[in-house]
Amino acid sequence: MNSRSGDEALVTGRITSLTTYDVRFPTSRGRHGSDAMNPEPDYSAAYVVIGTDAGIGGHGFAFTIGRGNDILVAAIQTLEPYVAGYSLDETVADMGELSRRMVHDSPLRWLGPEKGVMHMAIAAVLNAVWDLKARLEGKPLWQLLAGMSPEELVDLVDFRYLSDALSRDEALAILRAAQRSRAERERELLASGYPAYATSPGWLGYSDTRLAGLARRAVADGFGQIKLKVGANLEDDRRRLRIARQAVGPGIRVAVDANQRWDVAEAIEWVRALTPYDLWWVEEPTSPDDVLGLASIRRAVTPVRIATGEHVPNRVMFKQLLQAQAIDVLQLDAARVGGVNENVAILLLAAKFGVPVCPHAGGVGLCELVQHLAMFDLVAVSGSARDRAIEYVDHLHEHFVDPVVIRGGRYMAPRAPGFSAEMRPASIRRYTYPTGAAWTGARRSRAC
Amino acid sequence: MNSRSGDEALVTGRITSLTTYDVRFPTSRGRHGSDAMNPEPDYSAAYVVIGTDAGIGGHGFAFTIGRGNDILVAAIQTLEPYVAGYSLDETVADMGELSRRMVHDSPLRWLGPEKGVMHMAIAAVLNAVWDLKARLEGKPLWQLLAGMSPEELVDLVDFRYLSDALSRDEALAILRAAQRSRAERERELLASGYPAYATSPGWLGYSDTRLAGLARRAVADGFGQIKLKVGANLEDDRRRLRIARQAVGPGIRVAVDANQRWDVAEAIEWVRALTPYDLWWVEEPTSPDDVLGLASIRRAVTPVRIATGEHVPNRVMFKQLLQAQAIDVLQLDAARVGGVNENVAILLLAAKFGVPVCPHAGGVGLCELVQHLAMFDLVAVSGSARDRAIEYVDHLHEHFVDPVVIRGGRYMAPRAPGFSAEMRPASIRRYTYPTGAAWTGARRSRAC
Repeated sequence: MNSRSGDEALVTGRITSLTTYDVRFPTSRGRHGSDAMNPEPDYSAAYVVIGTDAGIGGHGFAFTIGRGNDILVAAIQTLEPYVAGYSLDETVADMGELSRRMVHDSPLRWLGPEKGVMHMAIAAVLNAVWDLKARLEGKPLWQLLAGMSPEELVDLVDFRYLSDALSRDEALAILRAAQRSRAERERELLASGYPAYATSPGWLGYSDTRLAGLARRAVADGFGQIKLKVGANLEDDRRRLRIARQAVGPGIRVAVDANQRWDVAEAIEWVRALTPYDLWWVEEPTSPDDVLGLASIRRAVTPVRIATGEHVPNRVMFKQLLQAQAIDVLQLDAARVGGVNENVAILLLAAKFGVPVCPHAGGVGLCELVQHLAMFDLVAVSGSARDRAIEYVDHLHEHFVDPVVIRGGRYMAPRAPGFSAEMRPASIRRYTYPTGAAWTGARRSRAC
Repeated sequence: MNSRSGDEALVTGRITSLTTYDVRFPTSRGRHGSDAMNPEPDYSAAYVVIGTDAGIGGHGFAFTIGRGNDILVAAIQTLEPYVAGYSLDETVADMGELSRRMVHDSPLRWLGPEKGVMHMAIAAVLNAVWDLKARLEGKPLWQLLAGMSPEELVDLVDFRYLSDALSRDEALAILRAAQRSRAERERELLASGYPAYATSPGWLGYSDTRLAGLARRAVADGFGQIKLKVGANLEDDRRRLRIARQAVGPGIRVAVDANQRWDVAEAIEWVRALTPYDLWWVEEPTSPDDVLGLASIRRAVTPVRIATGEHVPNRVMFKQLLQAQAIDVLQLDAARVGGVNENVAILLLAAKFGVPVCPHAGGVGLCELVQHLAMFDLVAVSGSARDRAIEYVDHLHEHFVDPVVIRGGRYMAPRAPGFSAEMRPASIRRYTYPTGAAWTGARRSRAC
């Protein structure tokens, strides 16, 4: 049932260690990443390295915005016994089992269930083992997943609580339908990449001049969509949307992101006030937990499209967002839900309901991770990139060994083996909190 | 706006410290607390003491079932700067502000938002400050809350994301309506207590003989309701329900608890198969996140009543459970949502929607905490104990300084100042993990 995919050689050895790092970038100094709910984020990674005795490791992380990153690091550290000591071959051969071992451990589940710090920690560890598996098989993760059989892929999925919306057989049918033309789409992806959209112009903390300049540059760089943060002040939002539209011209999509700022009635009122500005989507108009509220908002502001997902904790909540017709755009996150496995479930749910997935990225290394999931989706699940785009923010990529490559407003498919998750050792050292040079010599060092 | 309640004297001094303890009881050795999802829990408390320079402290905790209790302890420890150094008088005078300081801190919020480990940690700390405030005012918490004005009470509530279901004015109206007969209900409560129901008979790990004996004893002790764990095996459930009904006789309510075991269709089928056994309610038939699934189950099995709440993470999810008519019984937990403040919001929501609240208890010290919330609700919010009962499990009370008092199947109203949260110092020492004598001398020590 859980046979190894493809034709990889038997890997001998064991997982020997799990090592964590509290890595924080002082991004709040430049108000990069500022929005209506998060005025001063220090983009951070609770980073984990899975060590083996086979001369190869796996890297993973969960993204936070500063304070509390140490709690996530502690949660990740607690997971060491769930991987260390296990045979490498058996572990990477049955990633479904590894996911269940952690997610269904009842005392850990009590801390969620399947949400918050513990679930993010499981994501970091599981993703690190996926990185390891992809390295062992010599493939970038998207290609590894896209090469697995439909049966192997559904074995990754935990169908518990999903069966009223998606059965194992329905999932198999979706994957089998996509299987016929996988090769063609893979060639196309390798040749021309996957669409991206640009969030960098639109942070709330940026001046109008900076907004206009960055919006123009995004179009010049080939992006077909930009996104602006909104929700702090309606007049500011109107002015900034006018400036952005003037800067980008008519053919470019302009989305807005309220970062959970509004209650239901306020969201409806505010979005209606912004409707004249030709919004491509409105992201996180209210609490990500409020399925019924998002559905009410969507009904009231149609045809404006509703997007949400970066803070949605698990597949059960995504299932309901789809069942309630609460969203037009599903924004999965690589390390908020339980890692690759739960994201395979979420991609299958989205395909079943015909809702496009536009992953959440930015932060630290999220672009590096989610590109693999979107590309896997294109090749082997939904089979389409229509109305889909991966968020792109041009921060902090230089800290990664295999950073994203954007060309003409598109993510180029990664070719290096792994999940693109590995951070440069020098960056880990420099930004380790609170002992790294970026923090001890904060006043002397250049702004991040 | 946030005036101090009543006529308490000005308190000088500061909060000086936050000290944490990882306290675990080896309950898995006796299979106490075993259910369909949690076979071997070690009941644990992530325990916190708020120190002051005024010669008085506050105690709080969150409940877990063993592994991972240290993560919650780490999260609580991180909150020290949110309380330590603050003036005692200003802090206890504005508990709404203290709650907002922690819940709306954006980097901490990122770790939820408002769910999982971080939210439980905030609950532990906020509840500890409530314990402190009640001690300073010389009242048990229920009485302190029940003596606050409607205006003071709504100032505790975070109405963000609630306004489509409950406005501040509606909340005020509910509280004002109850205000007229507060004194009468308080007298009655002090005289005769609050109804309890007994879960102790029904753990899955207990033999049929033990089940029958404990069920009979519960009735002899005056309980009007017992609860059985179900969901592992249908034939076992049928047999155990027959045994329980035979033991308790006809006039006693028998509820069952599936601990999230089923998917939606399976829940409907299983509950229908148990319907002949005259179930008072079915608790947690599926994922606590699945508002729409719970609503489907409820529609399909009516008139069997659906209960849920111990794992519901916040007021936004409770709001939807009520809006979707997904539950007949709301089971709040004292330290899963954001502490007393969020529970005041949840009690107001339940009153608005006319759904009875039957708090989740058991575990470590949860009975001690939730009795205050239910009694406050009776006196000052819903004004009723009809079809309401607080869960009661007869474990681990001996470790508390002011343990619950059950008489004739009812919780007697606590009279000592505080939130009944203080654990005996000797118990903390003995059960501190992994260094306490209960763990280092595990083989020699008596079973817990």
